[in-house]
Parts: sequence; C-alpha cells; structure tokens
Amino acid sequence: MRNSSRSNVDPFIVMDVMEAARRAEDAGRHIIHMEVGQPSTGAPVAAREALAKALDHDSLGYTVALGLPALRKRIAQLYGEWYNVDLNPERVVITPGSSGAFLLSFTALFDSGDRVGIGAPGYPSYRQILHALGLTPVDIETSLDHRLQPVPQDLEGLDLAGLMVASPANPTGTMLDKPAMAALIGAAQGQGAAFISDEIYHGIEYEAKAVTALEVTDDCYVINSFSKYFSMTGWRVGWMVVPEDHVRVVERIAQNMFICAPHASQVAALAAMDCREELEGNLAVYARNRALMLEGLLKAGFDRIAPPDGAFYVYADVSELTNDSRAFAKEILDEAGVAVTPGLDFDPKRGATTLRFSYARATADIEEGLTRLKAFMERRG
Amino acid sequence: MRNSSRSNVDPFIVMDVMEAARRAEDAGRHIIHMEVGQPSTGAPVAAREALAKALDHDSLGYTVALGLPALRKRIAQLYGEWYNVDLNPERVVITPGSSGAFLLSFTALFDSGDRVGIGAPGYPSYRQILHALGLTPVDIETSLDHRLQPVPQDLEGLDLAGLMVASPANPTGTMLDKPAMAALIGAAQGQGAAFISDEIYHGIEYEAKAVTALEVTDDCYVINSFSKYFSMTGWRVGWMVVPEDHVRVVERIAQNMFICAPHASQVAALAAMDCREELEGNLAVYARNRALMLEGLLKAGFDRIAPPDGAFYVYADVSELTNDSRAFAKEILDEAGVAVTPGLDFDPKRGATTLRFSYARATADIEEGLTRLKAFMERRG
Repeated sequence: MRNSSRSNVDPFIVMDVMEAARRAEDAGRHIIHMEVGQPSTGAPVAAREALAKALDHDSLGYTVALGLPALRKRIAQLYGEWYNVDLNPERVVITPGSSGAFLLSFTALFDSGDRVGIGAPGYPSYRQILHALGLTPVDIETSLDHRLQPVPQDLEGLDLAGLMVASPANPTGTMLDKPAMAALIGAAQGQGAAFISDEIYHGIEYEAKAVTALEVTDDCYVINSFSKYFSMTGWRVGWMVVPEDHVRVVERIAQNMFICAPHASQVAALAAMDCREELEGNLAVYARNRALMLEGLLKAGFDRIAPPDGAFYVYADVSELTNDSRAFAKEILDEAGVAVTPGLDFDPKRGATTLRFSYARATADIEEGLTRLKAFMERRG
Repeated sequence: MRNSSRSNVDPFIVMDVMEAARRAEDAGRHIIHMEVGQPSTGAPVAAREALAKALDHDSLGYTVALGLPALRKRIAQLYGEWYNVDLNPERVVITPGSSGAFLLSFTALFDSGDRVGIGAPGYPSYRQILHALGLTPVDIETSLDHRLQPVPQDLEGLDLAGLMVASPANPTGTMLDKPAMAALIGAAQGQGAAFISDEIYHGIEYEAKAVTALEVTDDCYVINSFSKYFSMTGWRVGWMVVPEDHVRVVERIAQNMFICAPHASQVAALAAMDCREELEGNLAVYARNRALMLEGLLKAGFDRIAPPDGAFYVYADVSELTNDSRAFAKEILDEAGVAVTPGLDFDPKRGATTLRFSYARATADIEEGLTRLKAFMERRG
C-alpha cells in the first residue's frame, strides 16, 4: 500500500527534543523543560470533582454534535465577561480541542487547492493540516517591526481564500491590538478571504487584554480551547464561534467527522469555567515566570526577543549565535540540561536562527533553567 | 463568507427522527427508541472507577500521539485473545473514536479526487468524510444474495484507490466470513486499492466470531473503537492497526490533526478491556433482544430482512409497504410511538424502501416496541 502525497507532513522537531530530553533523564540527568507547550497544572479541582460526580450517575453517551447546550451557553456568557460582546449561544460549536476546530473550519470554508495565509513563524499544525486536507498553506513572512504578526500589505497579491491569525501567537506570544486586528480583517474581507482567528491563548495575557475578532466583525470564525487558560490539554475540548448562517453546515461536518467532542471532557470544561480563583492563580505563576524570563534571558545573552504580550513563550532571534538552531538546541540540552525548541517547527525558512523558550512550568524550574542558561552562555563565550 | 463545496454534506435523516421523537416526548407521549445506534449502558464500572482514581493523582495532560503505550499493548493482546493473531503493539494507533480513524486512514492513503469504494447500504459518514476531504466516494450497490456486502466482481472497472468494508456492518449487521473477506482483499489488492476494514462492531456477534482482516493480510488498515462492545460511545476513543511501515506517517498526521485522543478516555478504555463479565452481560441482552426482534418483526410483517450476524441492527426491505421510507418512519412514530430510521441515510438510492431497527436498548423496551409495531401493522392492514 502506498501513502498519499497529502500524508507527507513534516515531523515536529520538538518531538526529537522531547525524546532526547527523555533519554537524558533515563540516563540519570536532571533536565529543565522549556520545550513543552502545555501547562504543568491539571484541570481545575472543581472540574475534576464535577466529572467524578457525573461518573456515578450519567452514562456519558454521545452528546449532540454542537455540544452540551449548557456549555455553549456558558461560553457565550464568557464573551460578555471577557470582551463585553453579546454572543448568541447558537453560534458556539464545541469541538475536540482547537485541533478539531481547525479541521472543521478549514473544511467548512475551503476547497482543494485553495490558498490559505498563515503567519510565519506560527503554529506548525496550521500548515500540516491544510496540506493534509489538500489545501495550500501560504506562509506570510512577518517582521519584528510588526511584532511578528501579518499586516494588510503582506496580503497583497496573495490571492487568498482565507487568512488565519493567532493572537497571542505561538511561538511568539505577540498580540494584535484592535486597530491591527481590524486592519487585517478588512484586508482579508477586501479580497474575499475568510478570516479565522485562533484565540487559544486568550486569558493568558499580561499587559493588556487580548482582542477577539468578534469585537470587530461577526463575519469570521473564532477558535478557542480549554487547553491553555483552563489548563485542560489532554481533555481535547475546545470551541469555535461561527457566523449564524454557517452553524448548520458546521454541525453536519461535525456530526460526520467527530460525532461529538468527548462528553466527559465537556462536563469537566463546564465546571472549569467557574474556577476563576484557581485559574488566576495559575496565571499569576505565568506572570512571575515571564518576568523572570525577560530578565534572565537578557542576562544570559538572549536579547533579541519578540514582545511576549501573552501565552507562555519567548521567541528569540539567535542568528548572532548560530545558523543551525537544531544543533544549538541540542548543545543547550547536552551542555546546560535545558530542553528548548528550535524555531524550524514554526518557520521553515528562518527558524534555523531562532529558539522558543516555554515558561509554562513551575517557577522553581524557570529559575533553575535561567541559571543554567546563563552559565552555559558564559562558558560558551 | 462563502462555504466550500466540500462542506456541502448531507444531513442525517435520523437526526430529524430523533428530534421528532423528542418533541413527541415533550408533548407527553411515551416513545420506544429503535432509531438510536448506541448502547444504553455506560462505560463499565471498573472503567469509571479507574478514571475516578486517575482524577485524584494524574494531571491527564497530552499523551503521545499514538496513545498510552499500556493501552496499545493491551489492544495488541486482544488480537491474540479474540483471533489468535500475533500483533506488534507498535502497529496500534489510539484514535479519537473510529471517526478519528476514518480521518487518519483516508488522509494517510488518498489524494484529492481519489476514488474510494464503500458498500451501499453503509455507514453514512464514510461517504460524507470522504467528500469533506476532497475525495470521491464510490457507492457499491450490494445485494441481499451477497448478504448486502460487496463481492469481488463488484469492483471490476471501478478504478478504486481504496476499498472500505464493515463486518458486522451498519445498518445490516451482516458479516463477511473468512473466504469472503479474503476474496475482497485479494480483489482490492489486485487493482492496487488500499483495503480498510471497519471492525467497530466486533465482539457483538451471535452465531459465529467476526473475522478480522488481519487474519488474512497485514497489508491493510483495521479500524475499531471502544464505543460498541466496550460501551463507551461518548468517550471518543478507538484504535487503528496499520502496516508497520505506515506507523510513522500516521503518527505525524495524528500529531497535527488531534495531538492525542482524550487522555481520560484512554485511562477508562484500558480498564474497560478487563471488564469481560460486565461486557458479556451487555452482550447477553443484545442476544436476547435480537431473538425477540427476529421473531417479533416477522410476526409484525417485516419479513424481508438481512441476516443480522452481529451489531444491534435489523435492516428491513419495506418496498412492499412503501416507496417513501421517510414518510413511513414518520407514520410509525406518530401512530405506534416507535422511532425507527429510514434507510436513506445508508443508501441514497434504494433507502426509500428500507428501514433500520436498532435493538441496543433494554429488553423491556424491545418487547414493548415489537408489540406496538405488530398492532400498528395490523391496523394498517
């Protein structure tokens, strides 16, 4: 049996880093994990309690494809709380993580060969899923002048059927403010391109509140998840907000592709939404870690970084130190015992000269990691 | 924003039936549900207990994309127990339900426009997912002479890149025995078509053990799930067995499309595999229901049925009673208070003269439903 061309997706280089880190740990070394893109915290206590209760009395069979009505309603309410946006719960679609939302949105909007713009650097799975669906990802090279986010003039002549943005972004943590978001939406709509806003890191922001595309227009898809702010990565539950007249189409695709998002995860997610205190506690840890990172990375000599407005990443330009980020990451792991991600996953062209540092773990780990990085860089000279 | 052409998938007609049944119940009527394709039982007790325990001490973050190693190993062991097949655990891929396995297998094997044969009648989502991925579903009209399963001569001249079969099948419950399976595999391989075997109803069989394609060849994809025999529909966890040299490709697609199957569901699924006693108890209920159905449907006048070797469905040819199965199902719901599924979801061409009866619910419901159906048919004359 042959594999298809569309199945030829790139491997995640971060997986090699994780495997190398695991082997080092097996060999008895102590490794600080700055490569991992997930919270070290589990689901909030009350979320786990709600599920434990449901396990006793609910058969947890299929939910309807759009998700538990109570969860859709609670998410609509969140848009009032976070953004002062009045959202019809009927527009909320519960998905198997943001991953499921990518599959749904791309399928609902694009046909074979359609060109979809994505920022580089950016989350690698955008490119890979588009490719796997027979669509054409179009990398938009962003610049530090524009906070590593696309700007309207980047879209000129690209002949896009869609534009996907992320704010806060992975791997940079940079955000689009409201004028920047509005300008991009206008430019996309101006060329008839569907606008998709990945808002998975909303809630994890430090200086200013993140802006949802729904503050600007209803004519867009918004994707979010319980994996980051709500600390529920392995539960595979997220959501999407779509225009009213797209709900039925998305529902039919979801019925066929997923049947539903995991029922148990939906029960836990609903309870998680009222765990504000615990979640804000997690956020305070990220905020402390971020402050340590900004200071510690500078001191260590990583001084060319994007302004991390949100999420839990720092993206550093290391072009003065290496033109082989993969080898450099290996050197850092071997010499300093700190696992970091080479930029190649996020930017196939320019990622050979960048690194991503994650600060999603415990503060003590961050402190130790920064100490090691500083010593490593001093030794390296 | 426009929707894509590939997003134009057919609605499930069974959803309209379920909605009509719900409205009737809201209006105070008592409805017997023979339309629903899922067990009424929840996950096995020990599975729920295992998860409850994990909730206390495990953060349940992402698993690796291929799934928990212990679960992959336990599934490989099942192939020894059920089929006497020696299976390398490395070939087992944990998926978000069989739905996830369809997405993975179709993506791994087929490119835009590729023609993939599926039996008609058959599970409607095969067709819809293929369409949504920009692939070309090719209906193979099966005949009652061949137990409503495709046979090698059906494939002649179809120019297929793939063939998907299901045994036991939905909506018919019919199975392929080993010679029939081997003949189909040979015919598919003979024309260079990848062979995919949907074995989701394995374990729910009555007269003979279901045959896995792996008894015939390693050069195929096998799809299964915890939703049916293991009674875990809403948990969205299933698996796929792929050839050794396809594992890495499938892993990369899974990393990007799903990250992983829900961690909590994987924990519960692992425990469910050792709940033989409870699961065989469920099976005894299906067996009793099936005997009642075969007798009761005949008595009611539904006498042209496919031989239901497995699963929990009876598919009836009602062409002597109607040429509008949708209207007929509505009449049965309105007059008899029994919800059944018109065949149109499963066979766009011939489904106007067929009905699917599910017997997955409690035996008392089945008895009451059959009594109502008999009375209805007598009144109808």
